[in-house]
Amino acid sequence: MPNPTAAMLVIGDEILSSRTRDSNLHHLAGQLTAHGIDLKEARVVSDDRAAIIDALRALSSSYDHIFTSGGIGPTHDDITADAVAEALGVSIDVRDDAKAILMAYLESRGSEATPARMRMARIPAGATLIDNPISAAPGFTLQNVHVCAGVPRIFEAMVAGVLATLAHGEPLLSQTLRVERPEGEIAGPLGELAARFPDLSIGSYPFSQDGVFGANIVVRGHDGAAVTAAMMELGQIFPEATA
Amino acid sequence: MPNPTAAMLVIGDEILSSRTRDSNLHHLAGQLTAHGIDLKEARVVSDDRAAIIDALRALSSSYDHIFTSGGIGPTHDDITADAVAEALGVSIDVRDDAKAILMAYLESRGSEATPARMRMARIPAGATLIDNPISAAPGFTLQNVHVCAGVPRIFEAMVAGVLATLAHGEPLLSQTLRVERPEGEIAGPLGELAARFPDLSIGSYPFSQDGVFGANIVVRGHDGAAVTAAMMELGQIFPEATA
Repeated sequence: MPNPTAAMLVIGDEILSSRTRDSNLHHLAGQLTAHGIDLKEARVVSDDRAAIIDALRALSSSYDHIFTSGGIGPTHDDITADAVAEALGVSIDVRDDAKAILMAYLESRGSEATPARMRMARIPAGATLIDNPISAAPGFTLQNVHVCAGVPRIFEAMVAGVLATLAHGEPLLSQTLRVERPEGEIAGPLGELAARFPDLSIGSYPFSQDGVFGANIVVRGHDGAAVTAAMMELGQIFPEATA
Repeated sequence: MPNPTAAMLVIGDEILSSRTRDSNLHHLAGQLTAHGIDLKEARVVSDDRAAIIDALRALSSSYDHIFTSGGIGPTHDDITADAVAEALGVSIDVRDDAKAILMAYLESRGSEATPARMRMARIPAGATLIDNPISAAPGFTLQNVHVCAGVPRIFEAMVAGVLATLAHGEPLLSQTLRVERPEGEIAGPLGELAARFPDLSIGSYPFSQDGVFGANIVVRGHDGAAVTAAMMELGQIFPEATA
């Protein structure tokens, strides 16, 4: 059975204006790879309702799981929850269980339950809450869309919570060989090898270091025996290579 | 006149598998912001012909400029040039000027002109070459798509080359105010301010530092007078704030 597929949608003007450097994509990619879910695509859009809705509809109909980051705070530009509800055609309102979680947290800190904060209890109909162990305001899963906070610490905690509920696929196995020859010389034999192993992903990542041109050859796949067989052939083609 | 718009397409399995952390998006976002071109969207896709073509068609019909990174090296998984040609409906073949550039570079290094290396001289019909001052193999601009290398040093040089040929828009101006109050308390007045300045982007980026909860409020826009007016109002709303 093929692995489940996933996509990520990063929401926020601050990424596209370069104010903030996104780190959530790299984190999610690593977690999904380890969990055996194949991350196929990522998109970054601004805090624009139409842009979020268009991207959500395209991604949620194409992949098994969509993870979003950003836009679920208390301010006027936090419009992700409403956009998700509209994209998936359900209503949205303040929900009692989310409100109770927020109120308990605010009371414990002596903070006021402002209308802005209560916006964080708006949850689309039919969604399941995602626990936020850092600052209480929950994320949610609606159909195949997992809506997470943008702050990296909270995003990471929410992803861990979601992944604990999802079936593992076959983890993607990966082996690397370092060859100190320019990529233009290894490309020919590498292409032939890739053609013989169509179910593996064989990538080549060039480097230059202290005047030496080389490449790291990375063999990835779900079938451990095939990965090993390809690595052994690589060792014969490039006997000088190092792991 | 509104600023030109742009999108980025990052091509590469290595980003989606977490082997490599992309840095080109953040770099491009900063350069475009400074140049007065509004980056509206970014996508990351794998080294998959259909995925690249679908994304290119969607982006190139929606934005003024598309920058791609990755997939123009000599190996079998470098399929960007062919995918761009197919997406935009033009033919592709080895082109004499690109070949001459590559041959001169290879000769100067005493390297062999392997068939794999000659793939890097495949250029879609009608494209303009983008200079590669690092390792010679050129990028190219076809219609509104600027095809650049994925290696960050080369990507950055190619982006600089392309931007030198594009008209400047109004640079996006940005001012920041630091408020040591939790985001839930500033969200109300901030939303009212944003409603009064619809042409500005007013964002709030929460932080917690040494037990203090606060937010950086960022006002962005092309109209300097409006940015200043909004900042002055912010100073009245939050008199304790610091720049």
